[in-house]
Amino acid sequence: MRLSDICEKLARDYVGEDREISGFQAIQDASSEHIVYLENEKFLNVFKNTKAGAAIVLEKHREFVPENCSIIISQNPHLDMALLSELFAAKIIGSTSKPPQIDSSAIIMPNAYVGNGAVIKANVTVMAGAYIGENVVVEEGTIIYPNAVVYNNCVIGKKCHLLANCVIGSDGFGYAHTKEGVHVKIYHLGNVILEDDVEIGACTTIDRAVFGSTVIKKGTKIDNLVQIGHNCELGEHCIIVSQTGLAGSSILGRNVVMGGQSATGGHIKIGDFTTIGGRGGVSKNIDGGKVYAGFPLMLHKDWLKMQMKLLSFFKEKKI
Amino acid sequence: MRLSDICEKLARDYVGEDREISGFQAIQDASSEHIVYLENEKFLNVFKNTKAGAAIVLEKHREFVPENCSIIISQNPHLDMALLSELFAAKIIGSTSKPPQIDSSAIIMPNAYVGNGAVIKANVTVMAGAYIGENVVVEEGTIIYPNAVVYNNCVIGKKCHLLANCVIGSDGFGYAHTKEGVHVKIYHLGNVILEDDVEIGACTTIDRAVFGSTVIKKGTKIDNLVQIGHNCELGEHCIIVSQTGLAGSSILGRNVVMGGQSATGGHIKIGDFTTIGGRGGVSKNIDGGKVYAGFPLMLHKDWLKMQMKLLSFFKEKKI
Amino acid sequence: MRLSDICEKLARDYVGEDREISGFQAIQDASSEHIVYLENEKFLNVFKNTKAGAAIVLEKHREFVPENCSIIISQNPHLDMALLSELFAAKIIGSTSKPPQIDSSAIIMPNAYVGNGAVIKANVTVMAGAYIGENVVVEEGTIIYPNAVVYNNCVIGKKCHLLANCVIGSDGFGYAHTKEGVHVKIYHLGNVILEDDVEIGACTTIDRAVFGSTVIKKGTKIDNLVQIGHNCELGEHCIIVSQTGLAGSSILGRNVVMGGQSATGGHIKIGDFTTIGGRGGVSKNIDGGKVYAGFPLMLHKDWLKMQMKLLSFFKEKKI
Repeated sequence: MRLSDICEKLARDYVGEDREISGFQAIQDASSEHIVYLENEKFLNVFKNTKAGAAIVLEKHREFVPENCSIIISQNPHLDMALLSELFAAKIIGSTSKPPQIDSSAIIMPNAYVGNGAVIKANVTVMAGAYIGENVVVEEGTIIYPNAVVYNNCVIGKKCHLLANCVIGSDGFGYAHTKEGVHVKIYHLGNVILEDDVEIGACTTIDRAVFGSTVIKKGTKIDNLVQIGHNCELGEHCIIVSQTGLAGSSILGRNVVMGGQSATGGHIKIGDFTTIGGRGGVSKNIDGGKVYAGFPLMLHKDWLKMQMKLLSFFKEKKI
Repeated sequence: MRLSDICEKLARDYVGEDREISGFQAIQDASSEHIVYLENEKFLNVFKNTKAGAAIVLEKHREFVPENCSIIISQNPHLDMALLSELFAAKIIGSTSKPPQIDSSAIIMPNAYVGNGAVIKANVTVMAGAYIGENVVVEEGTIIYPNAVVYNNCVIGKKCHLLANCVIGSDGFGYAHTKEGVHVKIYHLGNVILEDDVEIGACTTIDRAVFGSTVIKKGTKIDNLVQIGHNCELGEHCIIVSQTGLAGSSILGRNVVMGGQSATGGHIKIGDFTTIGGRGGVSKNIDGGKVYAGFPLMLHKDWLKMQMKLLSFFKEKKI
Repeated sequence: MRLSDICEKLARDYVGEDREISGFQAIQDASSEHIVYLENEKFLNVFKNTKAGAAIVLEKHREFVPENCSIIISQNPHLDMALLSELFAAKIIGSTSKPPQIDSSAIIMPNAYVGNGAVIKANVTVMAGAYIGENVVVEEGTIIYPNAVVYNNCVIGKKCHLLANCVIGSDGFGYAHTKEGVHVKIYHLGNVILEDDVEIGACTTIDRAVFGSTVIKKGTKIDNLVQIGHNCELGEHCIIVSQTGLAGSSILGRNVVMGGQSATGGHIKIGDFTTIGGRGGVSKNIDGGKVYAGFPLMLHKDWLKMQMKLLSFFKEKKI
């Protein structure tokens, strides 16, 4: 789509060269065919060096736009991005007419759906009622259980188990907001990548990235009814127990254990070999190698002591 | 069904005119074809003016039954209602022989099911494996993702997104209880109404009303793995983050935000423009316009201070 | 499979007679065709009397192996069990060629799948998109709602309601761990048994047992989005409210009520007629007949008082 057409949709002008734009991209990953937006000043340093072909920015950030990058001035770049995201969203059906490529050793049960462009490799089993979207790749030996859903463009590694009714790659929960309090949907243009030997529990949901990928690394095991937000990255060999919720862009190191019903806030980093006890709520970055609990989070041993102290104070009627 | 037949099923007598009864209804919404029940005295004033054709009441409430309303005296009106609810429940299949009416511009993918009496309007997409029950209406431009389920008689507005494996309109979790501790299922006779521009996350469940409707108003966005109980009403432009649970009959105003893993108790009202932080537990009615957190709930700023104070007291060994 | 073949897979030797082994079994339930493993010394007394044909044990436990039981010495019996579990796992498809046996009064809707060896009795309804695995038995009058999934070998009682998108019998979340932090999947060889009059909510997940059965007894009602771990046993007429999570091997008595978003740790026993309030976290065995709340758990009345005291202390600036 031409930059001039994009600007017509937004009813905005642009400064610089008109050019072909293929879609949105994260600031650091963009090339000349991409458009980016800037609103959060924390990305200003990265933005100054973006290779993007066009940028939507506030008037006050105009001076930071690199040479050769066309400029759209906006009073709400995030909202404009949301409004444009629908234009660049992958078509949910009909994105390709290439028939799926299914290895002769794979088992596709009745009532399973495999979309165009999908690649199903050797010894894969797709059970009844499962949905494999367009252009999905499923590597050797993976089992997709009944009624599991994998949205378009996701990548599933070798020997994974996707248990019944899990959902891989649905749109993340992201909106831009108008002054009137209306929420404008951000179509999520990225995907989900599961590496090898990953297990996804029944009715667990893993959202696709806004741009780029939500990534679950090799050997990580996720229990039932877990929510993994858009753009999360889970390291190798993590254990995520049932009903845990990871907010968008949570980054977990390797061998992180999240106990049942635990949670993270958004944009949190958890170091390697960390254990979060059941119900632990992680709202700040934490170093690796320790055991935490509580909400607010503290060392597990402190949480235990503090709860015991509180209870004995209460019984002694000091509180 | 004749009132006399109903009484035969319950092995009870009635006082007043025998008449045709089409089903149960809420006390304030009933007309002469409906039967109602009274057990909670908080509804006594409304009950005195009901237009219902028949009422199941305790002996002590006989005097409050309006003229022209036939009377069934019961020692347990709630239990009798539950026992009768099965008789009046909509048939899950076979309620109509009218074929579904599907606009020519709509896309119905393979293995999707559209029940009799359903109306699928222009530019709707029903993806593979989705289930659209009998008499459901889906308005223009809505997308029903793979394996999503919409039970009978629900109404879905324009441009909604129902993500994969969500469930709209399953029976609420309501039972009457015998003296012996047996739970008697209350068949839910109402439905779910989603207004326009509503988004429902993957594996989210929204229960149908006992009588009347569970309602999600225009522009409200609900994340993955959320539970919305029977007879809830969510105002316009609410944001309900993942793994939140709203108990039955929760009433939310407009632009209410519920953080991740938050919850309400039953029959709670939350005012417009309220924000509940992650894990907040709402057990009383709250006014609008403020930010709350904690369980028990308090102002978010108080919760933060209190948690910090507790932690510093613990570190100073005062507790 | 011959014991000698099993040992070849593990690259281990055995002592005693070579014999035919049909699979793993719990120590107390094993007979001569079974192999067992011992790692936790708490089972030592039971182990001394096992009837198993073979046992995987640590060198130091060799002396406790009963006569007539062949011995495999291992440095990690639990890990060896996990490695072997895949060999003994039921085939997900193709375990039998016997066609399903469906009563003529049963309704099987389009796109439903009923596996070989399954038995569907009178007046059962299997709605569109539901999956009934091989050798499943569904007793009279039960309704399986759209897209619900029942894995192989599970047993569903009379007049049960399995609401849309629930999952019965998926593999429990159990792994053995190598020294390098890799998690080795334990294939779950047991099943799930639902007795009569059980209701399972939408998107609720009930895991199959490692060995033996996960059991939900007569009349128990489970709400939406609940997780029931492997080998749990729920007594008659329990009420489990939405988003509750029961960890593996939780044992609940009869008429236990678990409030919304409550939880148990693993291997917990809860006595008859206990009520756990919303968000209650049960980490120790508790007696029956009382009402509890909080995490750590305490009597509900104490939890209420303690929270009120804390709040008033905070307001008086004592903390």
